[in-house]
Amino acid sequence: MRAIQLVSPSLNSFVAADLPEPSVPGHGQILVAVRAASLNYIDVAVAQGHYPGIAFPLVPVADGAGEILAVGEGVHGLVVGDRVALHPKARWPAGRATAERMAAMRGVSLPGVLVEVIEVDASSAVKAPDHLGWEAIAALPVVATTAWNALEAAHVGPGSTVVVLGTGGTSLTTLQLAKARGARVIVTSSSDDKLARARALGADEGINYRAQPAWDEGVLRLTGGIGADLVLETAGPQTFMRSLAAARQGGTVFTIGFLSGTVAEVDLLPVIVKSLRVQGNNTGSAEDLADALRAIAAHRIEPVVDRVYPSAQVADAYRALAGGGHFGKLAIALT
Amino acid sequence: MRAIQLVSPSLNSFVAADLPEPSVPGHGQILVAVRAASLNYIDVAVAQGHYPGIAFPLVPVADGAGEILAVGEGVHGLVVGDRVALHPKARWPAGRATAERMAAMRGVSLPGVLVEVIEVDASSAVKAPDHLGWEAIAALPVVATTAWNALEAAHVGPGSTVVVLGTGGTSLTTLQLAKARGARVIVTSSSDDKLARARALGADEGINYRAQPAWDEGVLRLTGGIGADLVLETAGPQTFMRSLAAARQGGTVFTIGFLSGTVAEVDLLPVIVKSLRVQGNNTGSAEDLADALRAIAAHRIEPVVDRVYPSAQVADAYRALAGGGHFGKLAIALT
Amino acid sequence: MRAIQLVSPSLNSFVAADLPEPSVPGHGQILVAVRAASLNYIDVAVAQGHYPGIAFPLVPVADGAGEILAVGEGVHGLVVGDRVALHPKARWPAGRATAERMAAMRGVSLPGVLVEVIEVDASSAVKAPDHLGWEAIAALPVVATTAWNALEAAHVGPGSTVVVLGTGGTSLTTLQLAKARGARVIVTSSSDDKLARARALGADEGINYRAQPAWDEGVLRLTGGIGADLVLETAGPQTFMRSLAAARQGGTVFTIGFLSGTVAEVDLLPVIVKSLRVQGNNTGSAEDLADALRAIAAHRIEPVVDRVYPSAQVADAYRALAGGGHFGKLAIALT
Amino acid sequence: MRAIQLVSPSLNSFVAADLPEPSVPGHGQILVAVRAASLNYIDVAVAQGHYPGIAFPLVPVADGAGEILAVGEGVHGLVVGDRVALHPKARWPAGRATAERMAAMRGVSLPGVLVEVIEVDASSAVKAPDHLGWEAIAALPVVATTAWNALEAAHVGPGSTVVVLGTGGTSLTTLQLAKARGARVIVTSSSDDKLARARALGADEGINYRAQPAWDEGVLRLTGGIGADLVLETAGPQTFMRSLAAARQGGTVFTIGFLSGTVAEVDLLPVIVKSLRVQGNNTGSAEDLADALRAIAAHRIEPVVDRVYPSAQVADAYRALAGGGHFGKLAIALT
Repeated sequence: MRAIQLVSPSLNSFVAADLPEPSVPGHGQILVAVRAASLNYIDVAVAQGHYPGIAFPLVPVADGAGEILAVGEGVHGLVVGDRVALHPKARWPAGRATAERMAAMRGVSLPGVLVEVIEVDASSAVKAPDHLGWEAIAALPVVATTAWNALEAAHVGPGSTVVVLGTGGTSLTTLQLAKARGARVIVTSSSDDKLARARALGADEGINYRAQPAWDEGVLRLTGGIGADLVLETAGPQTFMRSLAAARQGGTVFTIGFLSGTVAEVDLLPVIVKSLRVQGNNTGSAEDLADALRAIAAHRIEPVVDRVYPSAQVADAYRALAGGGHFGKLAIALT
Repeated sequence: MRAIQLVSPSLNSFVAADLPEPSVPGHGQILVAVRAASLNYIDVAVAQGHYPGIAFPLVPVADGAGEILAVGEGVHGLVVGDRVALHPKARWPAGRATAERMAAMRGVSLPGVLVEVIEVDASSAVKAPDHLGWEAIAALPVVATTAWNALEAAHVGPGSTVVVLGTGGTSLTTLQLAKARGARVIVTSSSDDKLARARALGADEGINYRAQPAWDEGVLRLTGGIGADLVLETAGPQTFMRSLAAARQGGTVFTIGFLSGTVAEVDLLPVIVKSLRVQGNNTGSAEDLADALRAIAAHRIEPVVDRVYPSAQVADAYRALAGGGHFGKLAIALT
Repeated sequence: MRAIQLVSPSLNSFVAADLPEPSVPGHGQILVAVRAASLNYIDVAVAQGHYPGIAFPLVPVADGAGEILAVGEGVHGLVVGDRVALHPKARWPAGRATAERMAAMRGVSLPGVLVEVIEVDASSAVKAPDHLGWEAIAALPVVATTAWNALEAAHVGPGSTVVVLGTGGTSLTTLQLAKARGARVIVTSSSDDKLARARALGADEGINYRAQPAWDEGVLRLTGGIGADLVLETAGPQTFMRSLAAARQGGTVFTIGFLSGTVAEVDLLPVIVKSLRVQGNNTGSAEDLADALRAIAAHRIEPVVDRVYPSAQVADAYRALAGGGHFGKLAIALT
Repeated sequence: MRAIQLVSPSLNSFVAADLPEPSVPGHGQILVAVRAASLNYIDVAVAQGHYPGIAFPLVPVADGAGEILAVGEGVHGLVVGDRVALHPKARWPAGRATAERMAAMRGVSLPGVLVEVIEVDASSAVKAPDHLGWEAIAALPVVATTAWNALEAAHVGPGSTVVVLGTGGTSLTTLQLAKARGARVIVTSSSDDKLARARALGADEGINYRAQPAWDEGVLRLTGGIGADLVLETAGPQTFMRSLAAARQGGTVFTIGFLSGTVAEVDLLPVIVKSLRVQGNNTGSAEDLADALRAIAAHRIEPVVDRVYPSAQVADAYRALAGGGHFGKLAIALT
């Protein structure tokens, strides 16, 4: 079957490959015809050689969606023809974070989804909401799982205030799910156009951090001096201290990103004085994804797919994500 | 009545004072004859002028214990003669962290306990365990509240591993309460003698970080490579990265101290990759203290009071705490 | 000042009284000019002599709203002129359920709100949302606190299904707050007209239990056989087994009512087999109410006040509540 | 291979059988040489025909322990030779209660453990503590999972009081784990001898309910009138109201048993007035068991196995459990 492989750590190293197609699914496994994929920063980090311990050649990409072609013995609750989201954490059906559950990730330590047919544990596939198309489903696993866990960690509901930094996939999905939970959402961006688009998605307020570099003060002003219940910290060192300043007493800074590097100068004093929770996150379980998809189905949320690339242009998709400038997710159609 | 005041931010500025004695307690208030006090680092920070916004002269010291002399109208559950711990967070009876609840603190923004008789809200006094003497009771409010919240945040129980840094009051109280919850406890210290004393209190393991500067590797070795469920981070920048390294996937680094400064170079990568929770803490509520005291009473835990100073030598007590070298708490007897 | 007293346990025993007006508020207390009150079933139980241990004459009614006339020493965060909801649990500012916190209730063990001016602990008054009138504020304390706790206990959010029995005050407030949290809501009633009005408030589905006595089967049908995450059980023995049947595996039956008596024949098997949580509730803390009001303010929720009675007709209001037939709350205007 | 089958619902219907031995484990599966089993009431209910929907002949018994003979592809963290506890909920690796996860149970809806070799999903096997023998390991899955969940639901720790009814396997395991968590434990029994044995295991207090039928009053007396944080309700209708009475405000009655029937006359009033949580439970996940075993290993807890039957006398073991009189668990050795 056709597949795409990354033969070395370089954005110029994607090659078409012919791999053996899996035929009969094992116990507890399913075969899925992959219809679409989407990119996350970890995919770029892998392709740029910034992620340690990768074995090349590698079928890349963590997030995927497809249709079940066959189910093995001992599979329950899924049948041939079901449309599923493929959860990248292949061995984390439910439960808490452990080294083993976090380590096994498609497109990183395991083969990714850029293949015609993939064999996966049924427990790592989640039925997709009916209202979504393939690219939309593929856009969700990493970002919806992460967004849901952020909102749960900060106990976000009506009356809460959520700040999301920027308009990447996790930020916009967090915005959408926060609105579904009844919260107020503040978005930061360097672009007034993107802020307008975020407002169209439901954001209550936008702060242009180019016009207003002290965006944390803007958050305090918008919250009567109290601060936000949750700050989704996607950027890293450049923004970290402002994220701490923007959070309320007892609030949560949910840390998932290091776009601007990994080493931050952190003043621990606000963490202590305001009793802040800085919560790191490395995706989550398939059960977390199922919870998020349940909410997405109930509210008929449409994830934001900025652009869909044909599989022949996968390198362009990577370059676009690496370059920034997107609004939401970048997807790849497999046909 | 006799009192001690700090007239300016200096360890040489304690003076005896004669203040009006409160007579009839207001609604919901009690009069308490203070019998003992204990010192915390925040007291030293106040006396050294490192804490902003203090109004001098100030009756210093946050933690106290005493006997109820009179109860006002509308006081329930406390009677004259009860022995109580005075909770320094004077307006935080229960519930979550808010700016107001955290701001009102005896010896900092409010008059402290170095007086013969103090009038306090009944809701900020907690009945003391019967088995404890005055200095032991006075040793507990800040450290027992903090220790309890750390153990709760990390959900510590039998099968858990707890690391405490050093042998100050919070570390030793966390050690004692962690043992009462059935956990395994690892203590770090620069002194083999202190490690031996910590073992006598129940510690399972000790690591001398002078002999073994990479004490985080020692923690990993002692936990089969997994790491600790909870690291009580009392030191700040010098130790912070090792604390992150010593914590297990999904573990908690409970951050309360900045002995070595407040600005740390923090690599966010382990926080994200291991899904760590860095939880800051600024004491807690009187209900938290009551929970801790319930456990202390049930297990007849004796807090470690390294030395008791007469009130005439209060400056010596401050200097001793500032100088380090103590094991557990430093108390002041008021007689 | 004018007041209304219940001189004996009978709906015919309300009398106008002239009571001394409180003048200077004590420490931590405020004087509130009461503007409106609302009735709950506990008020009826008290007036009918079904509640043990009441001392007559009693100023009745638990729920009230008013304007602050004066603040005592040691009051923080409230000023003269503030509009407040009076929380009936007078000594439960925050924290968990204890005997003492639950026992002290206005209109039951303490004087109620049918007075011109009431002196209360500032910690039992919660600032009211700006968009609400006096009767609407007075309608909220018991029902909003209870509804919020029900939704918290069952962890209700987008993707959850909530069932409320009937269209009394707690049911409708739970409906409104559940919608604000993004959940789907099913209402039961004996009246198609009331179901239509509930739908106008946001209910997704209505089941007329007169037309369909096996309403639990209706819930299962509407949830694809899964059942509800939360059933707000307001009725007691008559409905209890159906409430258990309507709940999903791991779901919550939040039990607050005994309209149809208190002794139920309960088959424990579904509780065990489905791992249900049957959670009883006796109101909650002022902090719970503040959380609910924060959500009500953010969503500009208007509580449903079926009818407002002048204070001269308080007995009629009691009779109307005892008789059923209302939709939402019955309020009393004090002017 | 040799196996034992129950050919019809009767304690006289156990027969030796020769079943095909599984050879090569499937993906994610392991082969386990079963060394021991233990009985739970559900096994008796199945054998007596009280459990609906059983397909005979059935290999009976839910709980087992054994040694891994072979591991399939895609198994991580387990190797040949590992000693494991077999979790009866075969498809519940972690996460919340769902219909599917609760339905699949060995010895009930799936073949049980009375075989020489069993093929199971690796995710349903948990590594056993080193200090335990085969019968002790086999004694644990159902009761340790249940006990752990009870203690978690009621948030039991030092300062808590736990009441266990009787001295069956779940009660004694709850006693042992409650002590490991630092709680105080009260045991009820009809036998002073059993109470003495429970005390030897760590129980703080015993109440002979034959001598003192109002054992709930005994609990109140022993807790200063407050009541217990957790009552482990194993008996059902006969004891249910006393269990509610013995629980403290905000306490938990963890309901797992129906020895005395399933239909109870329940007065909902104490549930509401005391804000009790009645939590049903149908075992739990393999992750719950792993947590319990981690605690059991850390404290070197030895589960109480009252008697070990050879597999030829399995019917005697069932009769003994049905007849009562045991203290702890009844095990079956497979050799």
